[in-house]
Amino acid sequence: MVRHMKKITIIKPKWILTVNEQFDLLTESALIIENDIIKSILPVAKLDTVEGLDDAETVTLENHILMPGLINTHTHAAMSLLRGIADDLPLMEWLNNHIWPAETKWVDRQFIQDGVQLTVAEMIRGGTTCLNDMYFFPDIMAKTCQQMGMRATTGLIVLDFPTIWAQSADEYLHKAMAVIDEVKEYPLISTALAPHAPYTVSNKPLEKIAMYSSELDIQVHMHIHETEFEIDEAVKNTGQRPLERLDQLNLLNPNLMAVHMTSLNEMEMERVAETGVNIVHCPESNLKLASGFCPVDALQKLNINVSLGTDGAASNNDLDMFGEMRTAALLSKGVSGDASSCNAQQSLRMATINGAKSLGLSDQIGSLEPGKKADVIAVDFSQLNTQPVYDPVAQLVYATNSMQVSHVWINGEKKVSDYQLTDIDAVEIIKIAQQWQTWISE
Amino acid sequence: MVRHMKKITIIKPKWILTVNEQFDLLTESALIIENDIIKSILPVAKLDTVEGLDDAETVTLENHILMPGLINTHTHAAMSLLRGIADDLPLMEWLNNHIWPAETKWVDRQFIQDGVQLTVAEMIRGGTTCLNDMYFFPDIMAKTCQQMGMRATTGLIVLDFPTIWAQSADEYLHKAMAVIDEVKEYPLISTALAPHAPYTVSNKPLEKIAMYSSELDIQVHMHIHETEFEIDEAVKNTGQRPLERLDQLNLLNPNLMAVHMTSLNEMEMERVAETGVNIVHCPESNLKLASGFCPVDALQKLNINVSLGTDGAASNNDLDMFGEMRTAALLSKGVSGDASSCNAQQSLRMATINGAKSLGLSDQIGSLEPGKKADVIAVDFSQLNTQPVYDPVAQLVYATNSMQVSHVWINGEKKVSDYQLTDIDAVEIIKIAQQWQTWISE
Repeated sequence: MVRHMKKITIIKPKWILTVNEQFDLLTESALIIENDIIKSILPVAKLDTVEGLDDAETVTLENHILMPGLINTHTHAAMSLLRGIADDLPLMEWLNNHIWPAETKWVDRQFIQDGVQLTVAEMIRGGTTCLNDMYFFPDIMAKTCQQMGMRATTGLIVLDFPTIWAQSADEYLHKAMAVIDEVKEYPLISTALAPHAPYTVSNKPLEKIAMYSSELDIQVHMHIHETEFEIDEAVKNTGQRPLERLDQLNLLNPNLMAVHMTSLNEMEMERVAETGVNIVHCPESNLKLASGFCPVDALQKLNINVSLGTDGAASNNDLDMFGEMRTAALLSKGVSGDASSCNAQQSLRMATINGAKSLGLSDQIGSLEPGKKADVIAVDFSQLNTQPVYDPVAQLVYATNSMQVSHVWINGEKKVSDYQLTDIDAVEIIKIAQQWQTWISE
Repeated sequence: MVRHMKKITIIKPKWILTVNEQFDLLTESALIIENDIIKSILPVAKLDTVEGLDDAETVTLENHILMPGLINTHTHAAMSLLRGIADDLPLMEWLNNHIWPAETKWVDRQFIQDGVQLTVAEMIRGGTTCLNDMYFFPDIMAKTCQQMGMRATTGLIVLDFPTIWAQSADEYLHKAMAVIDEVKEYPLISTALAPHAPYTVSNKPLEKIAMYSSELDIQVHMHIHETEFEIDEAVKNTGQRPLERLDQLNLLNPNLMAVHMTSLNEMEMERVAETGVNIVHCPESNLKLASGFCPVDALQKLNINVSLGTDGAASNNDLDMFGEMRTAALLSKGVSGDASSCNAQQSLRMATINGAKSLGLSDQIGSLEPGKKADVIAVDFSQLNTQPVYDPVAQLVYATNSMQVSHVWINGEKKVSDYQLTDIDAVEIIKIAQQWQTWISE
């Protein structure tokens, strides 16, 4: 009968930041997790009226704020093994002369598994409970995340040219369908079609992707308008800006996660707004590669859904969503010239509920509301850099360090307790990463 | 005889980043501290040829990089008590409607002492070993830093209008001279004249400041060209851009620390270069208040000395120089459109030796070289987010979290050991900060 027992956790923090529609910030409240689900959020004073809590685990967090786990909507997880291999270089030089050669030489099944492990461990430790990936061997990526207890959307990469994963666009698509079938049994894993970029995927596979996305109702995850150079080359080669081409290919719709979008004219912004395209903003990667500035302020004013991603560790170089939230908020003010742009609340939404919407998972994750999956983190404000606390939301965005994440639950499972990973062996994972470094550096 | 004994510490890290002229990165090396001074840096293999090490303390740091302590060249230390009191607002609204009223109501001797304590504790914990301050009661600021073992330059503030510290420009200057005398006995403290800004200090006191700075050879620490608005107003009111006016007042010289400088035309940049003015860049504060972008790339190409500051905690909101280094490097790439701009090495210099130059202290601090004061920090790379390590310098700028600072020595005194403050009571300091919060929130 043990397997049918309910596992109940009662969390009593100082604050609960729900990130619900009203952005309620609660005090004197408790959150109850039953198995994988947030069962209720209620005043502490009413806890003794609730039945069935006798065997519950109670976690009291006196100086902490409880909030939804962070959702990283663009990364290349396995690239953590290439963190710091080439820095201070522009996008195309970085890709052509460093990243792509290294990938050709090193990426294989083991690289993916080991790199994803490093990334997932870093992310969970820092309060990220869901990631959206695009890389090779999406099957291994998915399996590794499921085994580690990490929620993820695995990106079914499509390219025109051959790589270790597939030889032709048709083979990429064929394998994509196989992975969709294979990962159906993994409760923590979703899938997205992931055509790399307009300049690496031709019309025919993109037409198929638009069709599959519509038929299967799955997201399409794609780098779009990352740099002015990309757009200029497209205009030169095709006579069209990439977004216009994607529009003709029926890809502009709420299933599209358009990553980067550093350059958008007014007509394009309106088109994005009216078609319900999601934009994934990667401020630190865009800065590091001097790719341009995503016009976040203008997008938010058009009510376009903007979420956040770190991009891969080779262009960031950490996978810290607290840092990304802060950079997004600061950069939007700087770029728009308006210090009220992308305020703390907006930035927090970008890193949580907007990510869930972008992934098509907002009925399951992204806020602390009864009935949703229990992806929950606690941030300990009892550190010097987060004292005193006038405004917990501003504190999270402008002063919090990711190492203040003290507790993490994913799908109701406790993954971090008192700052320590509960069931992931960081020492072993680092040893493996260092082995890769030795090989790659030789 | 005990008081004449030499105190020797031998530090054996994995790497030593000297930040000397050649930017030497050493391995298999040790650093020896004798009392307050870096005595030598030598190969570990030669340690047994050195005399007098029998009673030395040896600190072995297997996964760590040893580097100069970070130098924060612009802050208002006591403002940590106002962290998060008003966010997402433009500079003048933030100052006029929030910060200045709060300061008028709350700033007194006790506020300064308690706020400086919070700031110094946060800074030391995060690897900052020297700060350059501008605020009221610079005497109490200096005394508090000296007592806590923090190196600091205390800014002798000057304004035209009355505050709790002085009633007239003449009284500010009179008090400045008194503080210079008073703090001469504090070995960790330097002084700088700190006229607040061109728009708050008139010509007469500025002429005196130029004279005192020259006669006493002390630095002048001033907000200059923080926003376009400041410049436009000055042109409207005086017919001159502020920098031109300061030039006529003989303030442009190597003693000047010009803070912010988000707007500079080409002639002004050349003038800054030829006069040897130091520029203090506060990227996170400039972004947060939408003040504009300091043209760091252009300044560096003119060999102008640019150092880094966090500004006060009310406009940042942390005092994390690792975050500031990263933001400076990323933002310069984004603003210049050149991903090779402000590379990791340049960013690290900005946070260390360039800060020392700006403060006129480069013979004493800013690099790990024999004969300099022992302001030394160790960063532990054995965390998930800093593995693997291809390039320790890139790792420090692009991936390191300030909470990875494991050891800090200031003036040869061990202030942080294994992540813990050795002689500062953070719990008590936070309790006092929370008391202020209660008062201020009422």
